[in-house]
Amino acid sequence: MFGGILNNVHEKTPLVHCITNYVTVNDVANVLLACGGSPIMADDEDDAPEITAICDALVINIGTLNKRTIASMLKTGERANELSHPVVLDPVGAGASSLRTETTFKLLQEVKFSVIRGNISEIKTVAKGKGTTRGVDADVSDAISEENLNETVSFAKELSAETGAVIVITGAIDIVADTHKAYVIRNGHPLMAKVSGTGCMLAAVIAAYWAANPDWGLEATAAAVGAMGYCGELAYDRLVKNNGGTSTYRSYLIDAFSKLDAQSLEGGIKIESR
Amino acid sequence: MFGGILNNVHEKTPLVHCITNYVTVNDVANVLLACGGSPIMADDEDDAPEITAICDALVINIGTLNKRTIASMLKTGERANELSHPVVLDPVGAGASSLRTETTFKLLQEVKFSVIRGNISEIKTVAKGKGTTRGVDADVSDAISEENLNETVSFAKELSAETGAVIVITGAIDIVADTHKAYVIRNGHPLMAKVSGTGCMLAAVIAAYWAANPDWGLEATAAAVGAMGYCGELAYDRLVKNNGGTSTYRSYLIDAFSKLDAQSLEGGIKIESR
Amino acid sequence: MFGGILNNVHEKTPLVHCITNYVTVNDVANVLLACGGSPIMADDEDDAPEITAICDALVINIGTLNKRTIASMLKTGERANELSHPVVLDPVGAGASSLRTETTFKLLQEVKFSVIRGNISEIKTVAKGKGTTRGVDADVSDAISEENLNETVSFAKELSAETGAVIVITGAIDIVADTHKAYVIRNGHPLMAKVSGTGCMLAAVIAAYWAANPDWGLEATAAAVGAMGYCGELAYDRLVKNNGGTSTYRSYLIDAFSKLDAQSLEGGIKIESR
Repeated sequence: MFGGILNNVHEKTPLVHCITNYVTVNDVANVLLACGGSPIMADDEDDAPEITAICDALVINIGTLNKRTIASMLKTGERANELSHPVVLDPVGAGASSLRTETTFKLLQEVKFSVIRGNISEIKTVAKGKGTTRGVDADVSDAISEENLNETVSFAKELSAETGAVIVITGAIDIVADTHKAYVIRNGHPLMAKVSGTGCMLAAVIAAYWAANPDWGLEATAAAVGAMGYCGELAYDRLVKNNGGTSTYRSYLIDAFSKLDAQSLEGGIKIESR
Repeated sequence: MFGGILNNVHEKTPLVHCITNYVTVNDVANVLLACGGSPIMADDEDDAPEITAICDALVINIGTLNKRTIASMLKTGERANELSHPVVLDPVGAGASSLRTETTFKLLQEVKFSVIRGNISEIKTVAKGKGTTRGVDADVSDAISEENLNETVSFAKELSAETGAVIVITGAIDIVADTHKAYVIRNGHPLMAKVSGTGCMLAAVIAAYWAANPDWGLEATAAAVGAMGYCGELAYDRLVKNNGGTSTYRSYLIDAFSKLDAQSLEGGIKIESR
Repeated sequence: MFGGILNNVHEKTPLVHCITNYVTVNDVANVLLACGGSPIMADDEDDAPEITAICDALVINIGTLNKRTIASMLKTGERANELSHPVVLDPVGAGASSLRTETTFKLLQEVKFSVIRGNISEIKTVAKGKGTTRGVDADVSDAISEENLNETVSFAKELSAETGAVIVITGAIDIVADTHKAYVIRNGHPLMAKVSGTGCMLAAVIAAYWAANPDWGLEATAAAVGAMGYCGELAYDRLVKNNGGTSTYRSYLIDAFSKLDAQSLEGGIKIESR
């Protein structure tokens, strides 16, 4: 099934519009091409809503916010909703500053997201914005582990019910949940945390996967998360052979996406449902 | 001749001012250094016109437009014209949104460009802005092929007459034309389309080549286009030896520029005039 | 000692806030991760002062200035001063345009910097802003050499006295000076000048090193400068083995940071005090 999802991406080459931060934007563009999609970036209020209309999906990433781009995110998100395009939110740094937290809350109010992807801390902030008390409880820990996995899965499902979005919590273990079902994914490598932008890249890949598989949004999201983690493993295997460091690892990660096929993904993804 | 053009770039190290998109700006900076030039980026209205005055050429790339930078493009383009610097336009996404199309038209009205570089779709939009009906005819197809080559060459020459700029249409076959003469270049590799920014990089390399060869603008532009395609071939040859993917390919492309010499370019460029 | 400084960075993982240019921002983020720190970028007036409060150090890099970010640099610099965070200034292009020069002067007036890092031309412009006549004298040459080294060291010490900042002048030979003491560092490789952003990366690494070694600011800065140069040498050694070009060199430079340990730095740094 996950292989078939990948094949659909390769066949349909979804065009993904990104309003994203300028730190990792080049990697986002290149991973979109590598994974079988195609990127277009436009962040101005006078440009972005029109650009989104010719695309298949939208990513909103708040990594380097400013007033100009916030207005554009809201307007473009609403336009994508009208067009029934999948919209992915990456609330980078939500909780770290008022502007980021409040912008996240405003986006959640005015835009319907298909997927919200963050680390546990960012997703807890999202939950706070939705009035979910559970997310801010001490018992949902700051790192996903086997010990708190069931609890975190329940939290993700609950937040999905409240937001209407598939919730993706990334960490040592990744969770992809809608209201009824969650996938737990155990791919990836710790070195991915030493590369800037793996989260941003993942959000964009999710958008491409969803756009090419609109009837299987939850599974497409899980496939994207699994693909990212598995590519991280493949990149690490290749890295140790030639003694490279973190910059070479970043290249190998994108390389792995450009060479991933359905059979390899099916064999490599470590996934279970709960 | 093309080798001599490259030698002039290496000898003169032209300083190229870029007002360019934030997606591929780092690759643009690094390819300028690799090809023998030197980059400087400045996009604010209060900074860019003064910066351009200490440079040898200007690139205007509309990939991530906003109101602030449009004003700066216009003002800086006019300043570069006063100084008789070569100015290269890369109308990224012209035709895809009103803001991009109208900004392209406005730039064409207010700035005299030495070179306009785009894919066939962007160049057709440029032609529309100049009232050229031919570019929007069905008989100038959406991809350059051997079948429509003569027609596309005529279109490029006509557009050059109307704009006063050398017209560069990139695709599987590349065309570089002024009013009287066109070069047809058959270098490159399909994998270049899987790397974000090869077009943006080419526009910057053209600016460096022209700046170092002001009396041979058409030939310098053709040399830059040939060099880009040939470096794409060299990068591919190196890539297959170590089984890399698209990110490694991007690095190898810039690497190839940093190692290209006159003799290699003369031997590798596949060019004819029409 | 320099090895111990590196160990402190690895142990404390300082979070470095960067208000920096969009040309090299991704390399800055990745080199911060590679060197043992952690990056966060925020440049909006409504976001940056609050983000800086959760960080350990601030870098202000004026490479792609605009009115919006200038206001943010001033406000955030003042906030970092209140919090006694180390603040590093990288006055990219100071002297090349009025906006850059005047912004540098304004920053020097309103913000207290721990370190100012630039090439000799930028540092001379800084000196001009402080009324130091010496920096603009013909006898402080445009490139640091063995011949003018003593003179340039004296100039750096004098400027340190006037600014209260450690002065870093980078070139073929690097100088790191406070009022009383200067380190002269002879690491590095000429190919570093063919990669965009090595200066920007260094400014960020200095911030991380200082933040992890607050009682040894001068030595931490010298260690960062030595580490950058030594990593440039290691990257070159690796490059020649596989015949790579400048883009591969960029990756190897960041790779080297990710693999550098205390013992290797102690053995590789070429440093003397004057």
